[in-house]
Amino acid sequence: MNYVLAIVTGFNVSGAEEVTLKARGSAISRAVDVAEVVRCRFLRGVEIGKIEIGSEEMRIEEMNRTRTVSTMEITLTRSKPKPRAKPKRKRSQKRKEE
Amino acid sequence: MNYVLAIVTGFNVSGAEEVTLKARGSAISRAVDVAEVVRCRFLRGVEIGKIEIGSEEMRIEEMNRTRTVSTMEITLTRSKPKPRAKPKRKRSQKRKEE
Repeated sequence: MNYVLAIVTGFNVSGAEEVTLKARGSAISRAVDVAEVVRCRFLRGVEIGKIEIGSEEMRIEEMNRTRTVSTMEITLTRSKPKPRAKPKRKRSQKRKEE
Repeated sequence: MNYVLAIVTGFNVSGAEEVTLKARGSAISRAVDVAEVVRCRFLRGVEIGKIEIGSEEMRIEEMNRTRTVSTMEITLTRSKPKPRAKPKRKRSQKRKEE
Protein backbone atom coordinates (compact mmCIF):
# COMPACT_ATOMS: atom_id res chain seq x y z
CA MET A 1 0.00 0.00 0.00
CA ASN A 2 2.97 2.32 0.51
CA TYR A 3 3.88 1.99 -3.14
CA VAL A 4 0.32 2.80 -4.19
CA LEU A 5 0.38 5.90 -1.98
CA ALA A 6 3.72 6.98 -3.43
CA ILE A 7 2.40 6.77 -6.99
CA VAL A 8 -0.85 8.57 -6.17
CA THR A 9 1.24 11.30 -4.51
CA GLY A 10 3.46 11.48 -7.59
CA PHE A 11 0.51 12.12 -9.86
CA ASN A 12 -1.70 14.27 -7.64
CA VAL A 13 0.69 16.21 -5.41
CA SER A 14 3.83 16.44 -7.53
CA GLY A 15 1.78 16.71 -10.74
CA ALA A 16 3.85 14.15 -12.65
CA GLU A 17 2.75 13.21 -16.16
CA GLU A 18 4.20 9.71 -15.79
CA VAL A 19 5.53 7.50 -13.01
CA THR A 20 7.78 4.48 -13.56
CA LEU A 21 7.68 1.46 -11.25
CA LYS A 22 10.87 -0.60 -11.11
CA ALA A 23 11.14 -4.03 -9.56
CA ARG A 24 13.39 -7.04 -9.69
CA GLY A 25 13.21 -10.68 -8.70
CA SER A 26 10.18 -11.85 -6.77
CA ALA A 27 9.02 -8.25 -6.25
CA ILE A 28 7.96 -8.10 -9.91
CA SER A 29 4.55 -9.61 -9.23
CA ARG A 30 3.97 -7.03 -6.50
CA ALA A 31 4.83 -4.23 -8.93
CA VAL A 32 2.12 -5.53 -11.27
CA ASP A 33 -0.33 -5.64 -8.34
CA VAL A 34 0.53 -2.05 -7.45
CA ALA A 35 0.11 -0.83 -11.04
CA GLU A 36 -3.27 -2.54 -11.28
CA VAL A 37 -4.53 -1.22 -7.94
CA VAL A 38 -3.50 2.33 -8.90
CA ARG A 39 -5.12 2.07 -12.32
CA CYS A 40 -8.37 0.35 -11.34
CA ARG A 41 -9.12 1.77 -7.91
CA PHE A 42 -7.31 5.03 -7.24
CA LEU A 43 -6.56 6.92 -10.43
CA ARG A 44 -9.06 6.26 -13.20
CA GLY A 45 -7.33 8.65 -15.60
CA VAL A 46 -4.04 6.74 -15.49
CA GLU A 47 -3.07 4.14 -18.08
CA ILE A 48 -0.34 1.55 -18.40
CA GLY A 49 2.28 2.87 -20.80
CA LYS A 50 5.48 1.09 -21.70
CA ILE A 51 6.37 -2.20 -20.01
CA GLU A 52 9.92 -3.48 -20.22
CA ILE A 53 11.55 -6.59 -18.85
CA GLY A 54 15.22 -7.44 -18.65
CA SER A 55 17.82 -8.96 -16.40
CA GLU A 56 20.80 -7.70 -14.45
CA GLU A 57 23.76 -9.04 -12.54
CA MET A 58 23.46 -8.77 -8.78
CA ARG A 59 26.42 -9.13 -6.46
CA ILE A 60 25.97 -11.39 -3.44
CA GLU A 61 28.64 -10.34 -0.97
CA GLU A 62 28.20 -13.26 1.45
CA MET A 63 28.78 -15.88 -1.24
CA ASN A 64 31.26 -13.72 -3.18
CA ARG A 65 29.59 -14.32 -6.54
CA THR A 66 27.07 -12.75 -8.90
CA ARG A 67 23.55 -13.84 -9.72
CA THR A 68 21.28 -12.88 -12.60
CA VAL A 69 17.90 -11.47 -11.60
CA SER A 70 14.97 -10.46 -13.78
CA THR A 71 13.92 -6.82 -13.81
CA MET A 72 10.75 -5.03 -14.84
CA GLU A 73 9.75 -1.43 -15.49
CA ILE A 74 6.13 -0.33 -15.77
CA THR A 75 5.42 3.24 -16.85
CA LEU A 76 2.09 4.68 -15.76
CA THR A 77 0.94 7.70 -17.75
CA ARG A 78 -1.78 10.22 -17.16
CA SER A 79 -4.26 9.90 -20.00
CA LYS A 80 -5.88 12.89 -21.69
CA PRO A 81 -9.31 13.66 -20.25
CA LYS A 82 -12.07 12.47 -22.57
CA PRO A 83 -15.01 14.74 -23.38
CA ARG A 84 -17.85 13.92 -21.04
CA ALA A 85 -20.90 12.24 -22.41
CA LYS A 86 -24.20 13.93 -21.70
CA PRO A 87 -25.74 12.57 -18.53
CA LYS A 88 -28.71 10.39 -19.21
CA ARG A 89 -32.05 11.57 -18.01
CA LYS A 90 -33.45 9.60 -15.20
CA ARG A 91 -36.54 7.76 -16.14
CA SER A 92 -39.31 7.89 -13.66
CA GLN A 93 -39.37 4.54 -12.00
CA LYS A 94 -42.60 2.70 -12.06
CA ARG A 95 -43.18 0.54 -9.10
CA LYS A 96 -45.54 -2.26 -8.98
CA GLU A 97 -47.79 -1.94 -6.05
CA GLU A 98 -48.22 -5.06 -4.18
CA MET B 1 12.83 -25.27 -16.42
CA ASN B 2 9.78 -27.10 -17.77
CA TYR B 3 8.36 -23.82 -19.04
CA VAL B 4 11.66 -22.98 -20.75
CA LEU B 5 11.64 -26.38 -22.42
CA ALA B 6 8.03 -25.93 -23.55
CA ILE B 7 8.83 -22.60 -25.20
CA VAL B 8 12.00 -23.90 -26.88
CA THR B 9 9.95 -26.83 -28.20
CA GLY B 10 7.28 -24.43 -29.43
CA PHE B 11 9.79 -22.48 -31.48
CA ASN B 12 12.10 -25.23 -32.66
CA VAL B 13 9.91 -28.33 -32.98
CA SER B 14 6.49 -26.87 -33.70
CA GLY B 15 8.01 -24.01 -35.72
CA ALA B 16 5.91 -21.31 -34.06
CA GLU B 17 6.56 -17.69 -35.00
CA GLU B 18 5.48 -16.47 -31.58
CA VAL B 19 4.78 -17.96 -28.16
CA THR B 20 2.75 -16.25 -25.42
CA LEU B 21 3.46 -16.81 -21.75
CA LYS B 22 0.54 -16.24 -19.41
CA ALA B 23 0.81 -15.98 -15.65
CA ARG B 24 -1.16 -14.64 -12.74
CA GLY B 25 -0.51 -13.73 -9.13
CA SER B 26 2.86 -14.61 -7.66
CA ALA B 27 3.78 -16.68 -10.74
CA ILE B 28 4.25 -13.45 -12.72
CA SER B 29 7.85 -13.02 -11.60
CA ARG B 30 8.59 -16.58 -12.68
CA ALA B 31 7.14 -15.89 -16.13
CA VAL B 32 9.56 -12.97 -16.48
CA ASP B 33 12.42 -15.25 -15.39
CA VAL B 34 11.39 -17.84 -17.99
CA ALA B 35 11.16 -15.24 -20.78
CA GLU B 36 14.60 -13.89 -19.89
CA VAL B 37 16.22 -17.34 -19.69
CA VAL B 38 14.75 -18.30 -23.07
CA ARG B 39 15.85 -15.03 -24.67
CA CYS B 40 19.36 -14.78 -23.20
CA ARG B 41 20.48 -18.40 -22.97
CA PHE B 42 18.49 -20.69 -25.24
CA LEU B 43 17.13 -18.85 -28.25
CA ARG B 44 19.23 -15.89 -29.29
CA GLY B 45 16.96 -15.10 -32.24
CA VAL B 46 13.92 -14.58 -30.04
CA GLU B 47 12.80 -11.17 -28.82
CA ILE B 48 10.30 -9.89 -26.31
CA GLY B 49 7.24 -8.66 -28.20
CA LYS B 50 4.11 -7.31 -26.58
CA ILE B 51 3.79 -7.29 -22.79
CA GLU B 52 0.37 -6.81 -21.23
CA ILE B 53 -0.77 -6.66 -17.65
CA GLY B 54 -4.26 -6.79 -16.27
CA SER B 55 -6.37 -8.25 -13.51
CA GLU B 56 -9.11 -10.82 -13.26
CA GLU B 57 -11.62 -12.11 -10.77
CA MET B 58 -10.80 -15.50 -9.31
CA ARG B 59 -13.34 -17.60 -7.48
CA ILE B 60 -12.26 -19.14 -4.19
CA GLU B 61 -14.61 -22.04 -3.58
CA GLU B 62 -13.56 -22.74 0.02
CA MET B 63 -14.29 -19.21 1.16
CA ASN B 64 -17.21 -18.74 -1.23
CA ARG B 65 -15.99 -15.37 -2.50
CA THR B 66 -14.01 -13.82 -5.35
CA ARG B 67 -10.56 -12.28 -5.28
CA THR B 68 -8.84 -10.00 -7.80
CA VAL B 69 -5.50 -11.24 -9.08
CA SER B 70 -3.03 -9.57 -11.42
CA THR B 71 -2.31 -11.18 -14.76
CA MET B 72 0.48 -10.86 -17.27
CA GLU B 73 1.05 -11.91 -20.87
CA ILE B 74 4.49 -11.87 -22.49
CA THR B 75 4.70 -12.56 -26.22
CA LEU B 76 8.01 -13.92 -27.46
CA THR B 77 8.58 -13.49 -31.20
CA ARG B 78 11.15 -14.97 -33.52
CA SER B 79 13.22 -12.11 -34.89
CA LYS B 80 14.53 -11.90 -38.44
CA PRO B 81 18.07 -13.28 -38.69
CA LYS B 82 20.67 -10.50 -38.77
CA PRO B 83 23.78 -10.69 -40.96
CA ARG B 84 26.59 -12.22 -38.93
CA ALA B 85 29.43 -10.02 -37.77
CA LYS B 86 32.92 -11.33 -38.35
CA PRO B 87 34.14 -13.36 -35.36
CA LYS B 88 36.80 -11.60 -33.34
CA ARG B 89 40.22 -13.16 -33.27
CA LYS B 90 41.20 -14.62 -29.96
CA ARG B 91 44.05 -12.84 -28.33
CA SER B 92 46.74 -15.01 -26.84
CA GLN B 93 46.36 -14.91 -23.09
CA LYS B 94 49.33 -13.78 -21.14
CA ARG B 95 49.69 -15.30 -17.76
CA LYS B 96 51.76 -13.98 -14.98
CA GLU B 97 54.05 -16.62 -13.66
CA GLU B 98 54.30 -16.70 -9.98
